[in-house]
Amino acid sequence: MSEQGYADKRAYFDRMLTLYGRKPALEALRDKALECHALHLAHSNREGGIVGELINAAEQRGIPVQRHSREELARISRNGKQDQGVALDVICPAFQSVGGYLDTLDSARPQRLLALDGITNPQNLGMIVRSAAAGDIDGLLWARKGNAAPGPLVVKASAGTLYRAPVLTCPELPGALEQCQRHGFDVCTLESSAQTDLFAYQPQRHCVFVLGNETDGVSSKVSRLAQQKLSIPMNNGVESLNVAVTASLIAYAGRIERG
Amino acid sequence: MSEQGYADKRAYFDRMLTLYGRKPALEALRDKALECHALHLAHSNREGGIVGELINAAEQRGIPVQRHSREELARISRNGKQDQGVALDVICPAFQSVGGYLDTLDSARPQRLLALDGITNPQNLGMIVRSAAAGDIDGLLWARKGNAAPGPLVVKASAGTLYRAPVLTCPELPGALEQCQRHGFDVCTLESSAQTDLFAYQPQRHCVFVLGNETDGVSSKVSRLAQQKLSIPMNNGVESLNVAVTASLIAYAGRIERG
Repeated sequence: MSEQGYADKRAYFDRMLTLYGRKPALEALRDKALECHALHLAHSNREGGIVGELINAAEQRGIPVQRHSREELARISRNGKQDQGVALDVICPAFQSVGGYLDTLDSARPQRLLALDGITNPQNLGMIVRSAAAGDIDGLLWARKGNAAPGPLVVKASAGTLYRAPVLTCPELPGALEQCQRHGFDVCTLESSAQTDLFAYQPQRHCVFVLGNETDGVSSKVSRLAQQKLSIPMNNGVESLNVAVTASLIAYAGRIERG
Repeated sequence: MSEQGYADKRAYFDRMLTLYGRKPALEALRDKALECHALHLAHSNREGGIVGELINAAEQRGIPVQRHSREELARISRNGKQDQGVALDVICPAFQSVGGYLDTLDSARPQRLLALDGITNPQNLGMIVRSAAAGDIDGLLWARKGNAAPGPLVVKASAGTLYRAPVLTCPELPGALEQCQRHGFDVCTLESSAQTDLFAYQPQRHCVFVLGNETDGVSSKVSRLAQQKLSIPMNNGVESLNVAVTASLIAYAGRIERG
């Protein structure tokens, strides 16, 4: 394969989100706006009822149906306990690798990225995705290590917006943040002890805002990389905000600056 | 009882939140910062283990322990299926009736209230409470009719901030909104079809922002009362935001405007 061919193939797989579960797969197959790569079924499935509907829906759209052993399917779904013998590769048009994003970045307008540093609750992740997609976030830095994977619970909690969200994938966060810094980004962590108010901070450069774990906050490794630490002012002795709420405030903090 | 005595008593009960469940009651009894009115136990409870701990904790703090039939307790807890035979009256210092709030309102600064119009998910309610308490919301208009009641799930989802939140109680919302209007408030509903951008709207008068039901939005009765309809701009074809996220953006919209 040519170098370009290899790069294209890698970019294609960076856009792939593997769903599992019978109902989520059927809903996705029936959504004509979603491109799908393949439907994966375990040999152990009985071919009737909803499995029959899945096969029909895939065949009608010309999507390949691949059959696997239970063990192989669990490797594909990454959740053998909950996959119900079904996985589906969905192609998300706005997903790409961090490297691919940075290499083609050509914007005079300061970029605002949001990064996930140990977000494990799919409900929170779904809300973060929804608000980031709706608000002014150019990319959501999603490390495979340390965060819950994009799966059916996240799709549901995101009200289906995950498929269209600008997700930037990477193996682990600290390395990806350093990569961003080399491309002129400032790393801004949200930390409750920080002195600078998020709403007073008006970045003139590219910026990655980092959201920490729901309980422990930003990891020390990531905190050490930060050029800027920000906090959100709180009344009534409230000590912290929900992480998805914090994400939303970041996503809309620039509204007035930009008009 | 004198008229003043009666009014004081009513104000006291407006501040009362009745929790149910063994663990939530024990946690609240052990929080010295929380004033408690009475611990209610069903006769059916076995007096050992956690029930013993509840009685000890109440007696140590001089909080009356009242015993009831299972049926009476269900009336007190309003959730006989999940109360585990235990209810606890907590006094929340910032709770009051809408009428009490309006009658004593004496502020040159424009007030910002947030009103709940059919919010039934306790997880969302908890996040709304937490963000309203942290942000710039002077009162949270909470009608008993149409919304989930403030209970243990809301307390948990609010990260304990419900006890300190400025909750304004009322029997039903439309009447309370008309009461606010008679005191110089504008009613602003959040509706996705509205033309005016929340972030461009800078109220100079007192304002009640109304959050509608998670699925159906603001009720038609309330929508008809609105002087102003507002929406939040959304990118990437996202059609709506989570209601708690919307609440947070309202709670901090004044900060974003001020920059």
